[in-house]
Amino acid sequence: MDFITVIDYFGTFAFAISGVRLAAAKNFDLFGAYVVGFVTAVGGGTLRDLMLDVTPFWMGQPSYVIITGLALLFVIIFRKYVVRLDNTFFIFDAIGIGLFTVVGVECSIAAGFPVWVNIIMGAITGAAGGMFRDIFINEVPLIFRKDIYAVACVCGGIVYYLCLLMELPQVFVQVISALAVIIVRLLSVKFGISLPSLKPEDQ
Amino acid sequence: MDFITVIDYFGTFAFAISGVRLAAAKNFDLFGAYVVGFVTAVGGGTLRDLMLDVTPFWMGQPSYVIITGLALLFVIIFRKYVVRLDNTFFIFDAIGIGLFTVVGVECSIAAGFPVWVNIIMGAITGAAGGMFRDIFINEVPLIFRKDIYAVACVCGGIVYYLCLLMELPQVFVQVISALAVIIVRLLSVKFGISLPSLKPEDQ
Amino acid sequence: MDFITVIDYFGTFAFAISGVRLAAAKNFDLFGAYVVGFVTAVGGGTLRDLMLDVTPFWMGQPSYVIITGLALLFVIIFRKYVVRLDNTFFIFDAIGIGLFTVVGVECSIAAGFPVWVNIIMGAITGAAGGMFRDIFINEVPLIFRKDIYAVACVCGGIVYYLCLLMELPQVFVQVISALAVIIVRLLSVKFGISLPSLKPEDQ
Repeated sequence: MDFITVIDYFGTFAFAISGVRLAAAKNFDLFGAYVVGFVTAVGGGTLRDLMLDVTPFWMGQPSYVIITGLALLFVIIFRKYVVRLDNTFFIFDAIGIGLFTVVGVECSIAAGFPVWVNIIMGAITGAAGGMFRDIFINEVPLIFRKDIYAVACVCGGIVYYLCLLMELPQVFVQVISALAVIIVRLLSVKFGISLPSLKPEDQ
Repeated sequence: MDFITVIDYFGTFAFAISGVRLAAAKNFDLFGAYVVGFVTAVGGGTLRDLMLDVTPFWMGQPSYVIITGLALLFVIIFRKYVVRLDNTFFIFDAIGIGLFTVVGVECSIAAGFPVWVNIIMGAITGAAGGMFRDIFINEVPLIFRKDIYAVACVCGGIVYYLCLLMELPQVFVQVISALAVIIVRLLSVKFGISLPSLKPEDQ
Repeated sequence: MDFITVIDYFGTFAFAISGVRLAAAKNFDLFGAYVVGFVTAVGGGTLRDLMLDVTPFWMGQPSYVIITGLALLFVIIFRKYVVRLDNTFFIFDAIGIGLFTVVGVECSIAAGFPVWVNIIMGAITGAAGGMFRDIFINEVPLIFRKDIYAVACVCGGIVYYLCLLMELPQVFVQVISALAVIIVRLLSVKFGISLPSLKPEDQ
């Protein structure tokens, strides 16, 4: 199990935790919480794979199903302490979207699509899971209203191509573009930066 | 038209009825009610087929489109009496999820996936239609909060494999695993058994 | 760039504008508004292409991504005047669904499906984008409750086949069936015609 895989699993765990916790806040039962956690973790990559016409990545190995189960167990056992770990989860989550974005870009490259599609697929991989989560729990998707989130994924995709242009070795391209996502995400939250919202027409 | 097909059509009818009735409760127009009924009936199998990369099953023959139309007609004509038939629909619905689960497991086996994917595909086939229905009518999906529903599908998928292990003939495998779903579903409703819910963190 | 392409782009623009404006009314940020605009414009065709098992149409050329960006820019710049253009947008939108319906029917024909599937694919292409838009902004889909919308698409699909039966040249078939959608849509709004709704059972 290489380093990338370890990070991927931690990212999946952090995503699943966020789904399980929001489901718990809505009084979902254990199974519902599991499903929301799973969709949060694998939803973005699944939508990407359907559009690229390849088999959804999580159907190739049971890791993601198991990690979501561990996330559910974790929330059940450490329910009272889980709030204190918010910062830890936030870091994992940021690392997760960074890594997911790079994975998404590379899946799309492998399928032979042009640059701009690859950047979009990176953003979908990193951000669409959270969007599905919010639709399932019947909330307006958070990523559309708060924080820099999907935009961080788009930045990461662009950085990926800048690195390719500079002919950096593959591993540098991956690390630098994932870091770009993570840094944009962390800085935007730390300094409370968010995109302006469109004012409704009647104001 | 064999026995399985008859059951499949009754299950589709029961699913479509549940979609049409919930749409009516939200004042949808006739077309909207039809769409919600159709999505409830075929949504689970469609998501399964997209993930297995085969053509959605309902596109192969017009039966499902027609049965949904009959369900809409049925609700329009027998609107005042339909409530009294709740128990009948409940039975059909339970039989429907039992059969849909078996169909889903077998589609996934035919596509060459491993056991755990097949069980998930069975559960998606049986339960995802109701989930889409609730998203369309803008409610928190019921299957995440009440009753044993998707869990019954998972049980059926596991029973399917236990029967395979015992090397029972195919038709016994199908009937026993469908019955497992139906029995779990009926008993859970009869005795008011539901999964515990995750308590929100602030309690 | 031929005439059909010009109309396609204007239709896309009108669809994207409707998504962006509704997102603005819900205080989405700029990125969220862009995503909702994009999903409104390309969501129907994407669902169609996933079910027909072809690559989503917008992944073949960047036009749709760019047009959605222009729509966002347009709403930002002309925010105060955009309400006055409601009638103009309505016309573009009606032309858009007419054209989208024809495109959807023809994609489905090209993929070798029977008549009734083609008509459904036409309706999905014309109407599903607006449905996704409403799910994203957490509203009950408008097309299920008000006006003749998806039904106009279905009418257009049927007219398409009547024209084929009359062995009209291809371009006439396209124009007449698109016009059928547009006329049904405009007349239903002008005269306030809508489908009856199913009365809830307790009334």
